[in-house]
Amino acid sequence: MEIKDYGITAPKGFFASHTAAGIKYPDRDDMAMIYSEAPCNIAGTFTSNKVKAAPVLWDKAMVEQRRKASVVVVNAGIANACTGEEGMDYCRQTADACGKALNIEPESVLVASTGVIGMQLPIDRIRNGIEAMSGSLASDQDAANSAARAIMTTDTVPKEASVTIELGGKTVTIGAMTKGSGMIHPNMCTMLCFITTDAVIAADILQEALSESVKDTYNMISVDGDTSTNDTCLMLANGMADNAPVSHEDGSFDIFEEALKEVNLKLARMMAKDGEGATALIEVSIEGADNDHNARILARSVVGSSLVKAMIFGHDANSGRILCALGYSGADFDPEAVDVTISSANGSAMIMKDGRYADYSEEYATKILSSDEVNITCNMHQGSASAVAWGCDLTYDYVKINADYRS
Amino acid sequence: MEIKDYGITAPKGFFASHTAAGIKYPDRDDMAMIYSEAPCNIAGTFTSNKVKAAPVLWDKAMVEQRRKASVVVVNAGIANACTGEEGMDYCRQTADACGKALNIEPESVLVASTGVIGMQLPIDRIRNGIEAMSGSLASDQDAANSAARAIMTTDTVPKEASVTIELGGKTVTIGAMTKGSGMIHPNMCTMLCFITTDAVIAADILQEALSESVKDTYNMISVDGDTSTNDTCLMLANGMADNAPVSHEDGSFDIFEEALKEVNLKLARMMAKDGEGATALIEVSIEGADNDHNARILARSVVGSSLVKAMIFGHDANSGRILCALGYSGADFDPEAVDVTISSANGSAMIMKDGRYADYSEEYATKILSSDEVNITCNMHQGSASAVAWGCDLTYDYVKINADYRS
Repeated sequence: MEIKDYGITAPKGFFASHTAAGIKYPDRDDMAMIYSEAPCNIAGTFTSNKVKAAPVLWDKAMVEQRRKASVVVVNAGIANACTGEEGMDYCRQTADACGKALNIEPESVLVASTGVIGMQLPIDRIRNGIEAMSGSLASDQDAANSAARAIMTTDTVPKEASVTIELGGKTVTIGAMTKGSGMIHPNMCTMLCFITTDAVIAADILQEALSESVKDTYNMISVDGDTSTNDTCLMLANGMADNAPVSHEDGSFDIFEEALKEVNLKLARMMAKDGEGATALIEVSIEGADNDHNARILARSVVGSSLVKAMIFGHDANSGRILCALGYSGADFDPEAVDVTISSANGSAMIMKDGRYADYSEEYATKILSSDEVNITCNMHQGSASAVAWGCDLTYDYVKINADYRS
Repeated sequence: MEIKDYGITAPKGFFASHTAAGIKYPDRDDMAMIYSEAPCNIAGTFTSNKVKAAPVLWDKAMVEQRRKASVVVVNAGIANACTGEEGMDYCRQTADACGKALNIEPESVLVASTGVIGMQLPIDRIRNGIEAMSGSLASDQDAANSAARAIMTTDTVPKEASVTIELGGKTVTIGAMTKGSGMIHPNMCTMLCFITTDAVIAADILQEALSESVKDTYNMISVDGDTSTNDTCLMLANGMADNAPVSHEDGSFDIFEEALKEVNLKLARMMAKDGEGATALIEVSIEGADNDHNARILARSVVGSSLVKAMIFGHDANSGRILCALGYSGADFDPEAVDVTISSANGSAMIMKDGRYADYSEEYATKILSSDEVNITCNMHQGSASAVAWGCDLTYDYVKINADYRS
């Protein structure tokens, strides 16, 4: 399996473009387009927030109706959430404009938005942006890189990856780009993510692979506990790799799913590390839990704790906060059986043994935590289930960014 | 109903003292004692965290066994949590020392601790502190004030209140002190709280009144979403007011409960306002919800949102974040029916109408939010249930305090 640094145009037949439409940010690209020359089977997972943005409702209906798609149009700056009927109408107008510009059915256009909630989209600028992007589609690495940059909001780095596998003698590629830095909390996707593949795969199998993969990747990251109104993860398969259809019977599903997970894992970690204001990636591994569900909620509880996040920022091995966060997770366990180990490129130390402070050097622990990637492993000594969650530290800059996001 | 600014010694027969035992903080009081000259019926509510500190287990057993109590011994600086059998033994030694010094049964001693998790108590200093405090008990206002100060950790102000009511011609007083500033999240108490009363009231009725009251007061505040290992709310009734026993039949329960709620409400608000690093109290009122449960989780979801907390710090009326937090609360509602109003001493404005941005002046909204007490009212237009929750803004100082709490 080969992993590349660029994403959505890596699979055969996919093109991308970008433009500065002036939606909200001055002087930067803020729209992107993904286009496939063959119609795609699609799958998607969406926010569980009761308040769903208009594009989420639009895409969800397309996925549920098992429609084919050829294009995704994305804008950054305005979320088109809490925008009522007018917001839904802008989705329709976007699809119409795109259909006209590319000579395709408006019913094959997926849309996505991210940014400030409540504002209405400047639809004329969106239309102009679509026209510009329709004329500049390209399938090279630059096109993918620029599209990944165009969808960023408070992100500091673009996030893309792709992987190539062999399926029955055919080369199949999966590529993806994501954005997300704040309002990030594990509950169905937690960001915008677009995954392309040239695999031949039926829509229901595609959905199965995506849903499974999201559970252990994007749904296990948290920046601030706020589940967005716009979380969207879309996957498009155009079938141009010409492989025998991916299926459970011949084992190709497992290979495909493993490759998909590889891409998603990489991007999930990148998203957590690029959390608003973050100086460090926090990886929490739960081992020896009694079942998968409990392993997941334990991992998410620790990675989501404000006090754990602040202690990582301060490089302070205050292990009581870790046990405290396990304790309020909702999972049942014996506090006096838990071991906690911290590790990073700088070393490793068990800081809690049998639920009590272990004998370790604070100075060494501080050195371990003085890294931009820190792992906290909690062994519950109950069973054999495990889970991993990712987050980031809580910093002055997180507060700064969010105290004044709109201006 | 008369509310006073001092607490635990206001009811008849209660004494308090304090001392600088040198447990962890240098140069300040860090232990307090509450003593009643008549044995008390007791009630308590405790943390729901799976990881419970030794004093929580000790007090919980006393409350469940319906034992009588005469004394509470409290220390700040070390939480006596994650301390194993040794920690339980320190509770026993504390009770023994107290029994000996005051010539009472060790079985009538309640204990409470707050501070760093995982460290063991310096039991010799605790013993010396108990000896000093046993000789300096007093029933005046100063004694109550000093005790409330001695139990503080990151609190910036002491928190006490008392109220006097008439029950069947007799004067009954309820007094209380609390501490709590970080690791505060609504789930059974969320702090240390000690409530004294001279009312004649059976233990089961006392427990009923306390449990009811906690639900709408302490369990509705949040500072950081972290439910502590040490949350304890204890109530002692010594019966010295000589009233006819508080009962449902003669209506005295309702009067007593209302008075208790008044005290607890005042202290809950003080605790939220004194949240670590806070510059403002945030009060979230939910109106028109379909039932009480949903009203509570909606209120708690908004008051606990990092993004809402940061926007209050920045005086930015970013109403989309409020609707977003309602949306991920878990309660079902129609997003397009919700109205949101912000208000403070500086004015009031509806910023969202029918789930969409209302027409208002951003400048005026910023003025409203530039206050140290801000209310956010969300009308769900579903039914007639309501709830109120309290929290505080998320600031640079919260991060600062918690990045380096132990040093």
